[in-house]
Amino acid sequence: MKFNKLLLAAVACGLATGANAQAKPEDQIKFRKAGYAFMSWNMGKIKAQVVDNPSSFNKDQVAAAANLIAATANSGMGALYGPGTEKDAGSQKTRVKAEFFQQPDEVKKLAVAFIKEANELQKVATTGDAAAIKAQFGKTGESCKACHDKFRKDD
Amino acid sequence: MKFNKLLLAAVACGLATGANAQAKPEDQIKFRKAGYAFMSWNMGKIKAQVVDNPSSFNKDQVAAAANLIAATANSGMGALYGPGTEKDAGSQKTRVKAEFFQQPDEVKKLAVAFIKEANELQKVATTGDAAAIKAQFGKTGESCKACHDKFRKDD
Repeated sequence: MKFNKLLLAAVACGLATGANAQAKPEDQIKFRKAGYAFMSWNMGKIKAQVVDNPSSFNKDQVAAAANLIAATANSGMGALYGPGTEKDAGSQKTRVKAEFFQQPDEVKKLAVAFIKEANELQKVATTGDAAAIKAQFGKTGESCKACHDKFRKDD
Repeated sequence: MKFNKLLLAAVACGLATGANAQAKPEDQIKFRKAGYAFMSWNMGKIKAQVVDNPSSFNKDQVAAAANLIAATANSGMGALYGPGTEKDAGSQKTRVKAEFFQQPDEVKKLAVAFIKEANELQKVATTGDAAAIKAQFGKTGESCKACHDKFRKDD
């Protein structure tokens, strides 16, 4: 009975469609794109409040966005670049370059740098110091860009 | 110069496409679906490690997944249900029911319950107690299901 409830609950969260560590390539691409998209929404909220419109700065909202970015960075997204995900799969298109799979050391270096900046952003965001958050937001964005420049197709 | 770098970095994170608080309906739907999809991947990792295959339990991975779920729950996704998002918009389809926009008090009640369970899951996950995590994972999934049952179309 209890297990049935757990299963039902799991299905409710979309887990019946292969949302596990061994997800099929199509789902891996879907999940990694979802992770980046949702992170970009949160980057956008910080940008809106510390760059575009500083008078709208809300410490709690910015801290929540920074938490999401750090949690995404630390979620082990490398597992979503398994075999078969180097090209479009099913309904999912990917812009990842072939070089991404050929240069694991470079990918790791960029990933570690991104995680470091995201963790620092999360830390700085708790202070509510808008200027410091703006500076660290810039560094975090640069660490996104470093990987995009190297491993993401433009179109 | 510094500002240009910041802008470039922002563009790198996809912020040139309207990823802010006033995102257009199509983007709001895209971002909210992305948030739920990425969260479901993280729910799936916890399920895999505490339900399906307990011998694979990894405390750090489960804690990271729980952090992502809590950060998503606390990210203010209500902002992604603005006017125009009650129906498909552009390339984005939505399964949200009309009732979602007509019953704000019920939505708030379910959202608060979900945030509470997600925060508790994050807390319990730090203990590394697999049985306790399994129990709280079940409660969190039930809080997902409560909203899906009421406000999400089946198809």
